Amino acid sequence: MWDALWLNGSLATMAGDGLGAIADGAVAVSDGKIVWAGARSDLGGAPNTLARTVNDLGGAWLTPGLIDCHTHLVHAGDRAREFALRMAGASYEEIARAGGGILSTVAATRAADVDELARLAAPRLASLMAEGVTTVEIKSGYGLTTASEAAMLRAAAQAAAAAGLRLHRSFLGAHTIPPEYAQRPDEYVARICYEMLPLVAEEGLADSVDAFVERIAFTPAQVARVFEAATRLGLPVRLHADQITDQGGAALAAQFKALSADHLEHTSPAGVAAMAAAGTVAVMLPGAYYCLRDTRMPPIAAFREHGVPMAVATDCNPGTSPLFSLLTAMNMASVLFRMTATEVLRGVTCVAARVLGLGEVCGRIAPGLAADFAIWRVGDLAELPYRIGFNPLVGTVVAGHPRARARPHASIAGTA
Amino acid sequence: MWDALWLNGSLATMAGDGLGAIADGAVAVSDGKIVWAGARSDLGGAPNTLARTVNDLGGAWLTPGLIDCHTHLVHAGDRAREFALRMAGASYEEIARAGGGILSTVAATRAADVDELARLAAPRLASLMAEGVTTVEIKSGYGLTTASEAAMLRAAAQAAAAAGLRLHRSFLGAHTIPPEYAQRPDEYVARICYEMLPLVAEEGLADSVDAFVERIAFTPAQVARVFEAATRLGLPVRLHADQITDQGGAALAAQFKALSADHLEHTSPAGVAAMAAAGTVAVMLPGAYYCLRDTRMPPIAAFREHGVPMAVATDCNPGTSPLFSLLTAMNMASVLFRMTATEVLRGVTCVAARVLGLGEVCGRIAPGLAADFAIWRVGDLAELPYRIGFNPLVGTVVAGHPRARARPHASIAGTA
Repeated sequence: MWDALWLNGSLATMAGDGLGAIADGAVAVSDGKIVWAGARSDLGGAPNTLARTVNDLGGAWLTPGLIDCHTHLVHAGDRAREFALRMAGASYEEIARAGGGILSTVAATRAADVDELARLAAPRLASLMAEGVTTVEIKSGYGLTTASEAAMLRAAAQAAAAAGLRLHRSFLGAHTIPPEYAQRPDEYVARICYEMLPLVAEEGLADSVDAFVERIAFTPAQVARVFEAATRLGLPVRLHADQITDQGGAALAAQFKALSADHLEHTSPAGVAAMAAAGTVAVMLPGAYYCLRDTRMPPIAAFREHGVPMAVATDCNPGTSPLFSLLTAMNMASVLFRMTATEVLRGVTCVAARVLGLGEVCGRIAPGLAADFAIWRVGDLAELPYRIGFNPLVGTVVAGHPRARARPHASIAGTA
Repeated sequence: MWDALWLNGSLATMAGDGLGAIADGAVAVSDGKIVWAGARSDLGGAPNTLARTVNDLGGAWLTPGLIDCHTHLVHAGDRAREFALRMAGASYEEIARAGGGILSTVAATRAADVDELARLAAPRLASLMAEGVTTVEIKSGYGLTTASEAAMLRAAAQAAAAAGLRLHRSFLGAHTIPPEYAQRPDEYVARICYEMLPLVAEEGLADSVDAFVERIAFTPAQVARVFEAATRLGLPVRLHADQITDQGGAALAAQFKALSADHLEHTSPAGVAAMAAAGTVAVMLPGAYYCLRDTRMPPIAAFREHGVPMAVATDCNPGTSPLFSLLTAMNMASVLFRMTATEVLRGVTCVAARVLGLGEVCGRIAPGLAADFAIWRVGDLAELPYRIGFNPLVGTVVAGHPRARARPHASIAGTA
């Protein structure tokens, strides 16, 4: 007898190349995993003889729980003043003089301990979860010292555990050159390779290693050193690639069989082909494109043509993408990048799972995978990327446990 | 003795030209209206000797309740399939053949009765309210028959009353030419003037009259006829103007001393000057600009230069702006139109109130105005337009009554 059965709704299993839709479906769960999924007519018995608990979807859609595969949501401080100055026409130099920019986030993050970082991350996680996210990726990259990077990764684990979310952590020591190494970036890269990465691997602080190749960040040669060290330690890699200029980032990621290359606004046709050959996923981050008022789209058509899978994520970060809604990222991917509804929905489920090396763990509705679901009161799943700022989530299920829809904030009674 | 006192937080009163910020403020309320507002140090007595109820803001910011001054949120049907087809590259002709476009919303709306329209509007209103909206404008314009336009306006009243929102209704019979009048638009305009408008006025169904001047809608001469009829009936006017092409809409609105002209992407310098002279407010609708991937911004700098006040609204509608978040509209106004944080915050409070003819009713924190507040857990009000998809609302107060933050949807327990 199964633990639980979900029925009287539609399923999007993500089987095959499309949504794998089943109009009147059923999903059975035991021990936190999916044990059966299919058409209700194939169930072969009365529901209450098959499972101890029978859950009525009431005509709703059941999808895999959403996966936000690229976030920087552990950090201290915010950059609202910087945003306001920028909107009022301030130059980057004026903003830097006013204490803005990524280094302001580094300073605030270094000053915070693990508990404080986890406390600050909690409402950000709650915001994502309220819209159906059940798995989140969180990067380090604002500490830039061994101790502060480790603190970020520990805070990520603490916050995700408290929230009951599935987590993938990425070590992003190679995010930006810290001020104390401004004139000697290679020394900082050495420190990443010989001090930070061994600690991350030994203490199991991260599931992958990320880096930022860009004129304003690290050179391809420096990133290659980081990736070689990661590979020696058995950690898969990812890359922030070709966001502002074409640094050959996509090809570099492919060379190291990266799980993903992310951003990719300036990726060349050769880079696309290399990603396809390496099986590297393209992660679309339209929140940063939108916030930076970028006009150069990633080469979506080329990704399609070469069969490079596309994921979609928030890039949630305090500077270039203060975006706390994966549904809004999905809308932006549709409106700004012209991704189809099916591409977008796969991009936050099965393709996102692959980015995190979790393709056999979650992101689809299939026997053996985790019972991570999101349940939506919509008539058509295209409604998810269609509306902006409207939340049709009924609730989520994580490892078989139904969760009420999160309420990120206290009611007014809580402060009155 | 006052009914209630709010203290231990910061106020944004919107006094003068800025935010009218008071760092450690207090607001007193009696009979649903503000009776005192100022610095706590000027209170002149122990709080519990001054008011029957003392509410502790806990360091939060108190602003006027937000006002969404341009929505089409009463309608039936959705256009998610059309959206999906459009993202997948379908042409407008293909979409029309598949039953899409504004006329699909007209058909669905005509088929719904008042109760059904009100029921459908409820979660849309709840979505706006969950982010601090206390006053909403709702237009007709998808009925296009006397009975169906009246049904939309009655549904707006019913839904807003059930939600406890302050409401302004606009009659928008001149939204699009109904299919049965496709070849004889002037006859439809006559019907608006001689049948619909007199009924709207007699039964008090609307607070203003709106119209859409555009090549794909009504000519300036047709709109002028509608506006003349509205003026004779004592109803103020507004106009959807210069969104796709410059039809001289801004000047036409100014000629009739319109409360506002809305959209304005193609407004000429002469149009801006005319609006300034007439005291007509410019309503910025960045959701439609974003969804249509428009590249021509409204003349923000010219509005500033001429002292034309700018409001910001969602334009919530099923076709060109399925946007259910005023905070996201504020972010878009900042990011896409480069409006400052102060402009945006005034644009959804005091300026939006003026658009609705409610300048002496709500939209500021001042004695004599309604006690409509929104309370925010932020350190700086620039955080409101800065973040996307994150809701820092603690709660709202409408006419002195504290309301818990709305929960638009049932928990999963409700359907399991």
